[in-house]
Amino acid sequence: MLRGVSSPRKPNPARRSERSRQAVLDAARRLVSELGYDKVSIEAIAARAGVGKQTIYRWWPSKGAVIFDSILALSADGESIRLPDTGDLEADLKTVMRATVAEFADPAFEAPVRALTLQVVGDPGLAALYREKLSGPVDEAKKERLRSAQRAGQLAADADLDLVLEVLYAPLYQRWQLRSGALTPEYADRLVEITLRAFAPCA
Amino acid sequence: MLRGVSSPRKPNPARRSERSRQAVLDAARRLVSELGYDKVSIEAIAARAGVGKQTIYRWWPSKGAVIFDSILALSADGESIRLPDTGDLEADLKTVMRATVAEFADPAFEAPVRALTLQVVGDPGLAALYREKLSGPVDEAKKERLRSAQRAGQLAADADLDLVLEVLYAPLYQRWQLRSGALTPEYADRLVEITLRAFAPCA
Repeated sequence: MLRGVSSPRKPNPARRSERSRQAVLDAARRLVSELGYDKVSIEAIAARAGVGKQTIYRWWPSKGAVIFDSILALSADGESIRLPDTGDLEADLKTVMRATVAEFADPAFEAPVRALTLQVVGDPGLAALYREKLSGPVDEAKKERLRSAQRAGQLAADADLDLVLEVLYAPLYQRWQLRSGALTPEYADRLVEITLRAFAPCA
Repeated sequence: MLRGVSSPRKPNPARRSERSRQAVLDAARRLVSELGYDKVSIEAIAARAGVGKQTIYRWWPSKGAVIFDSILALSADGESIRLPDTGDLEADLKTVMRATVAEFADPAFEAPVRALTLQVVGDPGLAALYREKLSGPVDEAKKERLRSAQRAGQLAADADLDLVLEVLYAPLYQRWQLRSGALTPEYADRLVEITLRAFAPCA
């Protein structure tokens, strides 16, 4: 669930600037999908976006920074991130996890995310930025839904919510990273069922 | 639990060759720990090992191949991999997971494993090799212990053992990869408790 994450609108850059900026981000993301992170250059991004290299360097210090932003932009759609809350935790989490699994099974989505993952895992500074800018806010939104479930008695009141999220998501990320198993709706459902069993309120 | 994995001894290379081979593997692993994967070259490995570059190219086609083998060699100690089986699944898994968490908290161990992880996640061919040579055999040994627990009624008889291993290990790997939380003995214990609760036999 990266799509659907929001960030506040930038304070009014000139419209034309904003168009160039978007073109650069789109170009960066597409090139990473097509070529892989290592083979993408600032020159190629500039050419694909139809801007000069200097335009890119005005906004970003490095190739890594452009690509990081291009992937963050996947998630910025102007809506506040919020998990569904129908009152039925299991149904809501299955909705979310099925969507997440579908994203990771989608080559257009997963290729740039894989490139980002490699950067983040290899670079402690980028990992901190990733937690601050992306995973932190997304996890907080997920925890809001889990807290609502705790109040409704559908999840143990003393459950460690960081651990709940790890048990729910980490198996999927590992399976995706290592290509060690199928990413199916049934798998999404199983992860939800297992997690809810692990953190069920005491009877 | 990568240490403690075995592979059968190679069929008698000349002792001197074997010494050079070991020197190359040690050099590769140390250099990756010190410099990071990207900065290590075949030249540097040869110099550190006190062999010629040609000696390395005789055995390995590429830098990636040497480093992959150097990390596999961490696990090759001549013993058959086997999880403890005292009859108490929870105690045995806690022993194993505490050791695993300690490995991933140890810079000398985790740095080359991180380098390997980045290669494996970025390269589908290497991921297949990794499953065949390393994670497959290790997982099979773990499943043997889980099957013994199923027979003893300590784990649901119909539990999907691949999923059990994912729930047990993937949170740790993710936390280690993203540096998103502490790797402590208590965390190891919690993962075991949560996993056993998730896959408990029906009462």
